[in-house]
Formats: sequence, structure tokens, C-alpha cells
Amino acid sequence: MKLITYKLKESGNEIIGIVSQDGQRIYPISQFDINYPTMNDLIENISSAELELLKSKAEKEHDQFVASDKIIKVAPITQPRQDIICLGINYMAHAEESARYKQEAFGGERPHAVYFSKRVNEAVADGGEIPGYEGLVDSLDYEAELAFIIGKDAKNVKKEDAFDYIFGYTIMNDVSARNLQTAHKQWYFGKSLDGFTPLGPVIVTKDEFDYPPKLDIKSYVNGELRQDSNTELLIFGIAHVVSELSKGMTLKAGTIISMGTPAGVGMGFVPPRFLKKGDVVTCEIEGIGKLTNTIG
Amino acid sequence: MKLITYKLKESGNEIIGIVSQDGQRIYPISQFDINYPTMNDLIENISSAELELLKSKAEKEHDQFVASDKIIKVAPITQPRQDIICLGINYMAHAEESARYKQEAFGGERPHAVYFSKRVNEAVADGGEIPGYEGLVDSLDYEAELAFIIGKDAKNVKKEDAFDYIFGYTIMNDVSARNLQTAHKQWYFGKSLDGFTPLGPVIVTKDEFDYPPKLDIKSYVNGELRQDSNTELLIFGIAHVVSELSKGMTLKAGTIISMGTPAGVGMGFVPPRFLKKGDVVTCEIEGIGKLTNTIG
Repeated sequence: MKLITYKLKESGNEIIGIVSQDGQRIYPISQFDINYPTMNDLIENISSAELELLKSKAEKEHDQFVASDKIIKVAPITQPRQDIICLGINYMAHAEESARYKQEAFGGERPHAVYFSKRVNEAVADGGEIPGYEGLVDSLDYEAELAFIIGKDAKNVKKEDAFDYIFGYTIMNDVSARNLQTAHKQWYFGKSLDGFTPLGPVIVTKDEFDYPPKLDIKSYVNGELRQDSNTELLIFGIAHVVSELSKGMTLKAGTIISMGTPAGVGMGFVPPRFLKKGDVVTCEIEGIGKLTNTIG
Repeated sequence: MKLITYKLKESGNEIIGIVSQDGQRIYPISQFDINYPTMNDLIENISSAELELLKSKAEKEHDQFVASDKIIKVAPITQPRQDIICLGINYMAHAEESARYKQEAFGGERPHAVYFSKRVNEAVADGGEIPGYEGLVDSLDYEAELAFIIGKDAKNVKKEDAFDYIFGYTIMNDVSARNLQTAHKQWYFGKSLDGFTPLGPVIVTKDEFDYPPKLDIKSYVNGELRQDSNTELLIFGIAHVVSELSKGMTLKAGTIISMGTPAGVGMGFVPPRFLKKGDVVTCEIEGIGKLTNTIG
């Protein structure tokens, strides 16, 4: 099942919908007597029975769907409750290109996962704008990533139980200001600028993919293929991450964890190919869709 | 004015109070017809008039105060709305001890502030326990820090206007697992374990201190003085931080920013002196109070 969040143009109210099998229609879940004000509330509170009901409804045609000209699509989770937890350097070929850019030695070893966080005041929707921050950012970069959402509070979870704690998957573009990321040593600021987190277009519930997911992941800039990999090449997989982090942190329901990006980002090219005003970036993951944004 | 949050033992309800001038009594603010469910709500929504009213009330004796045996003091902000933004390496003497511990060269230059974040599912109260994570953490450390709280949404704030955006000040112990902080390269995980954020004991509104604040900051382990500095020695001050971050990020009302720790942390000693079960750590800042916690 694909879940989407949209706003009614008239009222501005946030509404949750199911995307039809053919991707053409959106059914508001309220018609099935399931009501949550936001996707966060749904993820935190939905019962298994309600979720199964929605899944069965998603497979059928329904009379009540929303007219596309009456809505604005927004990110599936517009305001994450906490900062997004991100993995860095989690595909080997990206580890190599990063080391080259930073002029660091790289011996091909990745003994420990790199975790950082990304503040998201408001996630950017598919179709939305990524601000370019002229004068502040001179090296704007894209990073297509598979993100997953925690479905129930996770503490001390064994690797083999990690799947139970996943709600679903989405795409994140981990937009990065390389100059800020590098100058400030820790990556937080260069990753956390307003508008640096395109997310979506939908959340796909976990039952739709094999586990662990082996999905093609790609990005394009102005139609040119830049990243082209598969999530089976993750160095540290979802089970490892949930187990490792939850040894110390309670990962609350609604927590978004983004799994890092494959090779082919702007800083990976010699010379680097950073984003400029008017560029169109698309991140694509098999079975989830495309997340397209323009640099403002 | 000193603001405190406590829970009634009977109902478990969170209540906001003012600490009396002599520090002996707590007046619930509800008796002044000012009601907010949490400190976050107060900070985000209180009007200047209400705040002034509270300040004038704080200077007087009142009949209605809470009996100390009926309450549990909690952190002034129990659940920050977003991760806490922290500065690293922001006192020169601590920069030196950190470099020595990490066996890195240090030339005495700090050209850019280091920002990272700390997830806080639930802040630890004064008197509460810091978990020791035996088997996971072998190098538990303390860091006494001055933290300030943003009072209204800040974007593109000039240095000279930063004061307008401050609500008040508190103490944070930036508890750190050095082994996790170092192994995972980015500091996020080693700083974000459950129970790693003692905060409090109170929030002091900004009018109580000169600006920028020049306050003695100390820490003690089992009564032994470990850190002893003054916040005037911050390399990057509050105005710099608010101005720099708000060029890219909207710092929302309620955001907690912690200004880094002076020299004298456990890893600064040769050999290092890390915390162990039963140790009592006190962080103290002039005019704010003492934040004391025991290692569990």
C-alpha cells in the first residue's frame, strides 16, 4: 500500500490518502472511517486491524477519490517529530568517492556505521523547491537515499526482530551543502538547512517489498543519470542499524532513518558537479516512485 | 525569574512553577491564571505581558505554593520538540585536551564552530540517574554546559539582534560515550543515548543576567572539582551562533542550543578518568544552580 499526504487547496487541511494500484487516484482514508490528523499520528496509533483494512481497500476501486486539481501534494511526513537519523558513507563506491573529494586515504574498510542527524522543520514535497542559498552555499549536492520509518517504539531490538519495527519505506534526498558540511567538521549544519529534505512521494508499507529490500536506486540531474545502484549494496543494513542504535536509544514510532547514498553525487565527479539554480533533481527508487525537485 | 517543571505525585500531571527568590518555594503559575500544559507550550505562546506579570509575581511571597513532598521535580523541558543543537570544542582549553585525547595535532585555531545534535527522548531531571550502559559504553564522560532556549522563531537574525530571540538559560550535562563518539566518526550516536541529557534544574529568564552572560561554570565528580571556567571564554558566543545557524535554519521557539564544555572532562586527564557506577556528577552555573546526577 502506498500512503500519501495532501492538503486541500480550499481549507489547507492535511489529509492522508491511499494511492490506487494504477497510481492514478487518491482515496482519502476517512471514507473508511479511519481518521488521523497527520501521518505521524497514523503511524504511532494505527492498529494492525486498521492497517489490514486499509490494505484491502487499497486493492479495490472506490467511488470517493480526490480531484487532483483540488489538492496540493505534500511530503508524506511533513514535520518529523524528531530529527531524521542518517547514515553516512554506507555504500562502498560512495565511500571511495567521498574520500577522494576530501583528499583522505581510503583503505576500503568500513568497520562502524556513521550516524548523523538532519533537522527537518518542514520536509519538501515531490515537485517542491530546494533553496540554493546563494552567498552561503557554493557546493550544493544531492543524495538519493532509501529511508525507512519506525512503526513502534524500538529498544534493544535483536537483528532478527528488526523487521517487526518497520512501518514502511520512502525516498529522501539528503541535500547537502558540502562547504558547510566540511568547514564545520560535524555534518549537522550542512545537512539541516531549511528545504534540504525532500521526502516522498509516498510511504510504501513494508509488506510490499522483500526483506531486506533489494531495490534499484537512481538519481538524475536534468535528466542525466547520476546515481545508479541497488539497496542490496548497503554496507550496514536495516537490521544492523535498528539493532545497533536501539541498544542505546529508544527509536520512537515515526522515527525516520535514512540509509545513505550510493556513488554518483556531485562531489564524486572530477571536477565536482554541484547543483545550480534551475537544475532539476530526481531521486528514484524501484517500487516507491520518483521524487523530483528544482533548485531555487 | 526561575521557571521549573514538576509533576504531582498523585496525578502525574506536568505543572510549571516559579521558584521563589530564596529558592525555597515553588509557586504554580496557574494561580496567576496563566496555564500552559508544558514548558514548550509556554515558551512558544506566552505573551510579553504574561511574562512580565509572572516576573512581578516571582518577586513576591504567595500563599499558594506546592508542598515539596507532593511533587517530583523533572527537567524544565522534559521532551524537547527537536534534537538539541550542541557546540563542540568551544572553549580553547577543552580544544587542547580533546586533541590530546584523540592524538590529533592542534594548532590553536578554531576557524569555524562545530555543530552537532543530541536526541533527547526524555531529559533527565536534577537528581535523576544517568544510565551507565555496561557492555556498550566503556568511557562515559560528563560535560557541563550553558544552554539557552530560543524564545521565538529565528531566521536570518543579525548578531546584534540575537538577544531578542533568547528566552532563557539552563544547564545541560552533555553526557558522552567516548567509545561510540569516536568509533562512529560523527558524534551523534555517542551523545544521544537514552538518559544522556540531564537538563535543569531551572530555566532562568534572560533578564536575570548581563548579556552576553559571564557566568562561572563548574563540574564536580564525587565532590572533586573537575571543570572550572567562565562562559565569557566561549570561542563562539551566543550572538555568533544564532546569527550563523539562522542564515540557513529556522531556529524554532523552544529550540535548545548548548554552548559546549570547558576543559576538565574525563577524557582530558592522563590517563582519562571516566565515570563509573555510583559516581555523582554535579554541573553548576552561577545564577542557575546545580544539576546533580548519579551514574546507574
